[in-house]
Amino acid sequence: MLSRDSNAITRIAIIGVGQVGAALAYALILNSTAGELLLVDTKPDLRDGQVRDLSDVSYSCNSGTRVRAATHHEAGQCDVVVITAGSKSYRGETTIQHMYQKVAIIQSITNAMKPFRSDTILLIVAHPVDLITSFAQEHSGLPASQVLGSGTFLDSVRLRGMLADKAGVAANAIDLQVLGVHGESEVVAWSTATLCGVPIDKALPSNTFNPKDLANECKHRSQRIIQAKGTVSFGIGSALSRICSSILMDKRDVYPISHFQPEWGCCFSLPAALGRSGIIRTVEMATNSNEKADIRDSVEILSDTLKRVRENQ
Amino acid sequence: MLSRDSNAITRIAIIGVGQVGAALAYALILNSTAGELLLVDTKPDLRDGQVRDLSDVSYSCNSGTRVRAATHHEAGQCDVVVITAGSKSYRGETTIQHMYQKVAIIQSITNAMKPFRSDTILLIVAHPVDLITSFAQEHSGLPASQVLGSGTFLDSVRLRGMLADKAGVAANAIDLQVLGVHGESEVVAWSTATLCGVPIDKALPSNTFNPKDLANECKHRSQRIIQAKGTVSFGIGSALSRICSSILMDKRDVYPISHFQPEWGCCFSLPAALGRSGIIRTVEMATNSNEKADIRDSVEILSDTLKRVRENQ
Amino acid sequence: MLSRDSNAITRIAIIGVGQVGAALAYALILNSTAGELLLVDTKPDLRDGQVRDLSDVSYSCNSGTRVRAATHHEAGQCDVVVITAGSKSYRGETTIQHMYQKVAIIQSITNAMKPFRSDTILLIVAHPVDLITSFAQEHSGLPASQVLGSGTFLDSVRLRGMLADKAGVAANAIDLQVLGVHGESEVVAWSTATLCGVPIDKALPSNTFNPKDLANECKHRSQRIIQAKGTVSFGIGSALSRICSSILMDKRDVYPISHFQPEWGCCFSLPAALGRSGIIRTVEMATNSNEKADIRDSVEILSDTLKRVRENQ
Amino acid sequence: MLSRDSNAITRIAIIGVGQVGAALAYALILNSTAGELLLVDTKPDLRDGQVRDLSDVSYSCNSGTRVRAATHHEAGQCDVVVITAGSKSYRGETTIQHMYQKVAIIQSITNAMKPFRSDTILLIVAHPVDLITSFAQEHSGLPASQVLGSGTFLDSVRLRGMLADKAGVAANAIDLQVLGVHGESEVVAWSTATLCGVPIDKALPSNTFNPKDLANECKHRSQRIIQAKGTVSFGIGSALSRICSSILMDKRDVYPISHFQPEWGCCFSLPAALGRSGIIRTVEMATNSNEKADIRDSVEILSDTLKRVRENQ
Repeated sequence: MLSRDSNAITRIAIIGVGQVGAALAYALILNSTAGELLLVDTKPDLRDGQVRDLSDVSYSCNSGTRVRAATHHEAGQCDVVVITAGSKSYRGETTIQHMYQKVAIIQSITNAMKPFRSDTILLIVAHPVDLITSFAQEHSGLPASQVLGSGTFLDSVRLRGMLADKAGVAANAIDLQVLGVHGESEVVAWSTATLCGVPIDKALPSNTFNPKDLANECKHRSQRIIQAKGTVSFGIGSALSRICSSILMDKRDVYPISHFQPEWGCCFSLPAALGRSGIIRTVEMATNSNEKADIRDSVEILSDTLKRVRENQ
Repeated sequence: MLSRDSNAITRIAIIGVGQVGAALAYALILNSTAGELLLVDTKPDLRDGQVRDLSDVSYSCNSGTRVRAATHHEAGQCDVVVITAGSKSYRGETTIQHMYQKVAIIQSITNAMKPFRSDTILLIVAHPVDLITSFAQEHSGLPASQVLGSGTFLDSVRLRGMLADKAGVAANAIDLQVLGVHGESEVVAWSTATLCGVPIDKALPSNTFNPKDLANECKHRSQRIIQAKGTVSFGIGSALSRICSSILMDKRDVYPISHFQPEWGCCFSLPAALGRSGIIRTVEMATNSNEKADIRDSVEILSDTLKRVRENQ
Repeated sequence: MLSRDSNAITRIAIIGVGQVGAALAYALILNSTAGELLLVDTKPDLRDGQVRDLSDVSYSCNSGTRVRAATHHEAGQCDVVVITAGSKSYRGETTIQHMYQKVAIIQSITNAMKPFRSDTILLIVAHPVDLITSFAQEHSGLPASQVLGSGTFLDSVRLRGMLADKAGVAANAIDLQVLGVHGESEVVAWSTATLCGVPIDKALPSNTFNPKDLANECKHRSQRIIQAKGTVSFGIGSALSRICSSILMDKRDVYPISHFQPEWGCCFSLPAALGRSGIIRTVEMATNSNEKADIRDSVEILSDTLKRVRENQ
Repeated sequence: MLSRDSNAITRIAIIGVGQVGAALAYALILNSTAGELLLVDTKPDLRDGQVRDLSDVSYSCNSGTRVRAATHHEAGQCDVVVITAGSKSYRGETTIQHMYQKVAIIQSITNAMKPFRSDTILLIVAHPVDLITSFAQEHSGLPASQVLGSGTFLDSVRLRGMLADKAGVAANAIDLQVLGVHGESEVVAWSTATLCGVPIDKALPSNTFNPKDLANECKHRSQRIIQAKGTVSFGIGSALSRICSSILMDKRDVYPISHFQPEWGCCFSLPAALGRSGIIRTVEMATNSNEKADIRDSVEILSDTLKRVRENQ
């Protein structure tokens, strides 16, 4: 086994190498995003199977990224740690007991990784993501700007893509943010949506799309994919790989992403510039009063749940 | 839904979008290998779920590749068609009956695609790959140079990678070919293996590796991965994406790949330069007499099996 | 010399391989944008020197793009033809005589390429670009949607980048268009400029930047670069490579680019979605009345010049 | 100006931003090889012009690499420093006085960069490269494995490409090394040249190419390019970018590259695996006795010249 220089190479760890973690790993290797990729899983057979299958990718594509099995402790020394453990089950698990169990998993993962390298960035993919990210932020002891959750990034990307298809343009010509708490109460900031700087309702004929229907389709797209193929993997995997790349290269891309909001005391999604030290700056949105109210409502539900899970601990 | 210009855009179709087909699709989208990717499957729910999950990849990575559901007939008009249907089950299916069933599947797929665009390239991933490729070549009616099977490409890549790890060099510094009929009787051409032009037994101390053990490990690597994670997907998916890229860009990369061997009347793997018209030229190997005999033996078993399956039809 | 399959490979031709043409070629090869790159120049020594230097790039990076010398006639059969002849001299050449000379050059190039493949896209880089593009569009006989000029694309990209640096975000988080006739009278559409959907004057503190100064700096950036290094090459080269990629992959990216405006009877820059058939759709901007007036003024000057050059022919 | 995180981002410095340095910078930005690119030049106007032109590349391609002007001292803190100052003049400068001047330039650059970060890699492009690299290695005080010269890497790449074109295969299917002292006395290791593991004289019909002519054409290719376009830039620029990428990603690619040979006490090209700490291992070539003698001869001339330049100091 080839050992690699320990200091000057970029490293990403993935905790949990089920479908989501593996799809992320595959994208990172194909893009040579990091010098080394560390896979961690409580199931050593699965982990080693993924290492073998993904090493073949590295070999066949002359990737600059190598992959190996690692411990939680090694993961805590990486530039970026993506926790996908607990990302799998999207359906039905809404009881406080379930959430408590998930929080306990995150706590035990976090403990096993400690002490963290001081500039490690934690990226959480889980369900419900804002709740778990809020707890991970507390338990990690890392600065608030270094703990992120996937939040509404994929929702935003999807909605842009669906609108772009209707408009006959590329997805990146659309600027549109899904904000707040990921899930049923997430808020589409239609009032700031633009195509090439033109408000979306002027850029697209009103009969082209129905905002409510489209937002609904977007919100339930993961469920439809799960019903069809048993899992979501590639969309979320590639979205996570972009977040990792923005962080490692200090790109300052602006994405809606779950991070700590001091005035609320918890994590949810607002647009932020991402760089090597995590959240570089938050962008204040010019949402209208309805949207602001909807975001507030979604956050209040989250705060309430957080409180109940805390009481349960 | 965005309709795309029909003439001047490169297109790849994937028939069968289980784990292997989807892993191939994911790599093609991340690399923007083709302008359009057509997914075909007899299970419309699975196909549409994959289209949704993979469209999210295209959106989130600003890929130049778009993905859509398509019919067999549309697939027959693409630049490259990859048939992964029948690639799944690697274990136990060695009876003639099973092979006959697989051949029947390939025949029905081929019929459903006809008439082919005259310059379409067919790429087969299946088990046993050389047998199925031989039948596909016959049934398609396409020129022999346009029908390929994945063959021993992934085995070669793996063995190079494993040796490279032992030597402390990148995988592409090793030149080594696995030849003949994919599977138990495949032949490693050790006599021509080199590291940077130096014969491998001179370049690597003899105690670094045991050729037989390594060849064996390589041969059973897919099985070990399947035992661990239920499927092989990423390694073969990325290998197939490289083959597609070599073809579409007319790169003339030289890979061991299953293709028609006129003197034997069937398909198995010898190194060949790949380009837009498929097999551009075969490279004659300088294998030693033992290796030549082993290849001959492996091909004779294949020829015999082909005969028995034909009699069964 | 390796001959390549003539039908199914994507091809880009570059007419004029001075600094701009060569910088474009270099980017196309590094990105493997097309299967083949054809270089055309009236100076055969320069052309062959560039072919050799750029072939070394193709060799050293395993590019999918090969490069060769070609005739004007061969260029006319490519998917995209970029004409950089006449792009060099940015200073002082404002007399009608000079413009007439440049128009004559474009006419002779266009004639030498005829007959065009019916779906060829022409992309003009020249100074003054809108005038030359307007003439090229007429003389080529190609549909209006297939003749483009670099226009204000680079100016828009630059201004976004300069603003992004001030805001501490990535360039693609800024949406901002420079419109109208490229050069002194080009118009920055500040009224529609946004950062992540937020109007730029709300997103950035007013003391962060002075719009006029920034617009001025952007407008004269090429001149400053020319004074320092004798030429602009890389910025425009990479911008052109993105336009080529959007066309070849039918990406539908929305860029401000010079193209025929039916109501004005000439070519200048408004945002348009680019695809394999050139201009796929124009995006109507929500510019304010001042900006609209400024664009009108800039176009009237162009129309007047066009008329005078036509009278001179 | 956007300041970037100082610790965890990869950085490359280029000393000397003429044609070669700029072509390297352009490739690094297009490939997002490093997080930050520092340009250093004794001519501040040229340097700032390149920063502007190359920033436009970064903006227009959403590169992860940003570019800025820097001091020699800052360069000494980067992961990789490429010195192209003195790479320009290939013709006529063979007197000891000229060499002494070039050595003096390298010494002054090295002094201005000190103290180096302990793990910095120095990469020298100059003429005569092996002589200058030998001196740079001494003066830098860095470990021998961290000081490299471009050597015969480009020659090897070219010769492979030219052979590959004759064989109708991709350049990377050919394994062939040019070794020894770069320039007139460099040695092509024909005895170890292979196509897909097959000795080149068996793989290619003897009438396909004349080894001497081809080696000669390769050796004088730079001169022919310089005669045609005044400079070589893209070929060497892209070759250097690959070396930088191999180092930064710790890829272990095996290239013929100039590095310190303890038994000879000077630097010249033999194949070596490149990684984050520079030369990871040298690969011992199986060259025949004639080739070994030719390499010995070329090194003796170099040793003699080194001695005379030292006496001149």
